[in-house]
Amino acid sequence: MALQFTIPEMTSYLSEVFPQVEGMFAIDRMDEELLVMRLIVDEQHLRPGGTVSGPSMFALADVAAYVATMARIGREALTVTTHCSIDFMRKPEAGRDLLAEARVLKMGRSLSVTDVLLYSEQSDDPVAHASLTYAIPPKR
Amino acid sequence: MALQFTIPEMTSYLSEVFPQVEGMFAIDRMDEELLVMRLIVDEQHLRPGGTVSGPSMFALADVAAYVATMARIGREALTVTTHCSIDFMRKPEAGRDLLAEARVLKMGRSLSVTDVLLYSEQSDDPVAHASLTYAIPPKR
Amino acid sequence: MALQFTIPEMTSYLSEVFPQVEGMFAIDRMDEELLVMRLIVDEQHLRPGGTVSGPSMFALADVAAYVATMARIGREALTVTTHCSIDFMRKPEAGRDLLAEARVLKMGRSLSVTDVLLYSEQSDDPVAHASLTYAIPPKR
Amino acid sequence: MALQFTIPEMTSYLSEVFPQVEGMFAIDRMDEELLVMRLIVDEQHLRPGGTVSGPSMFALADVAAYVATMARIGREALTVTTHCSIDFMRKPEAGRDLLAEARVLKMGRSLSVTDVLLYSEQSDDPVAHASLTYAIPPKR
Repeated sequence: MALQFTIPEMTSYLSEVFPQVEGMFAIDRMDEELLVMRLIVDEQHLRPGGTVSGPSMFALADVAAYVATMARIGREALTVTTHCSIDFMRKPEAGRDLLAEARVLKMGRSLSVTDVLLYSEQSDDPVAHASLTYAIPPKR
Repeated sequence: MALQFTIPEMTSYLSEVFPQVEGMFAIDRMDEELLVMRLIVDEQHLRPGGTVSGPSMFALADVAAYVATMARIGREALTVTTHCSIDFMRKPEAGRDLLAEARVLKMGRSLSVTDVLLYSEQSDDPVAHASLTYAIPPKR
Repeated sequence: MALQFTIPEMTSYLSEVFPQVEGMFAIDRMDEELLVMRLIVDEQHLRPGGTVSGPSMFALADVAAYVATMARIGREALTVTTHCSIDFMRKPEAGRDLLAEARVLKMGRSLSVTDVLLYSEQSDDPVAHASLTYAIPPKR
Repeated sequence: MALQFTIPEMTSYLSEVFPQVEGMFAIDRMDEELLVMRLIVDEQHLRPGGTVSGPSMFALADVAAYVATMARIGREALTVTTHCSIDFMRKPEAGRDLLAEARVLKMGRSLSVTDVLLYSEQSDDPVAHASLTYAIPPKR
């Protein structure tokens, strides 16, 4: 499915709609097969011991699924997260960015389902695995 | 199951183990039947339109399940979130705190399962519903 | 929200749309607050040791959420399960029926979310906890 | 991680521990990277219209995750499903077997997490996506 945004366009769109998270995320890759989204880890994302917190991992998975969905449906659309299931499997490495690999499994008219794997940068074992559903309200 | 903490003890314990979230949460009620945890909403938790963000709702559900579990097993213990399923059902009300009602459905030796309903304060319709699993590592 | 079916009407409707499961389930209670659905346990639902299998527990949770949803939207409607999260918490008791308590948390125009607790009959500790989402296709 | 079973050994083990499902499933592939499990669809798995029912899809995902886990830990071990999240994304094709592709994302001492995609045979679009957690009780 052809994408409606380039990476710079999507980055700019994210800053516009979510000004609170400006500078928190970057898009490393965005094409029809795969989206790679980066959490630029800083102090606010950490737990004692220097590992990334659960809510920060959730936030990365959520924004990755959002970007993967919006890239397909375009900027006029509205979407809301309706469900997330997330398994936390390993402790993230201290002092490393977190990467999300997002794949859209279903892009329907009213729902998208996106699979997301999270990794500490330069590591092969996923730290978390999530599945997110976005509802796409009908256009008025 | 008898609780190992009073509310002031738990509040103090949370500040100690999660200094990053100091002042973000408060415990409104904590007994064997129910835990009520409050997200003291401020600017950092909001999305455009003034509603609480998904990651902030996740963070509240996660800390509520953590507190409900720790209250039962005591402070020597370690626990880690292994799973969360969360349904986002309604938009939170702008300008209101968010309340989590947490009920421990299972308190096993190695796993706890906690059901959490999230409400905007003074509203009867839940904004989100979550189920969280915490793993309790064996004592050494 | 007023219900569109009585128990006999719903029982008859289930037999009509799911003839394969005729005689497998019964509705013990159905009102606006709560649905109680029974799995009439027989040999096909069991695992070695005489406890109800995971797929049979899933089937009971799924049909309970379906009935709770259909009771609200009426028989012309179509619905499909889009998501289920289920935690298996305890072993069901051998030789007892399984009961599902289903509560509709959200009844929207396009999605319903139902919370389901499963119990072995005459037991207070839930054996499983599920959350199910049904999508309601627009009427044509 | 080296596997403790060949396909014929695992098939024989399944018949022994789950005699109720004898002949219902077959293992098409089982190696360290991927398990492919087949639901040999017959009348009992169908819904009106000839498509495979939700509980049958759940059963296939569950047995696939079980086999993938047991293949790694060996036959002395005990495991129980503690969680399943499953997204139903498309209607299965009528009159075709259902295939599960299972990948073990984490094989820990006390928990395994397995990702499962379900397909109608000869189709590229997944009909369902599941994540299952198995708990591995400590050896006595």
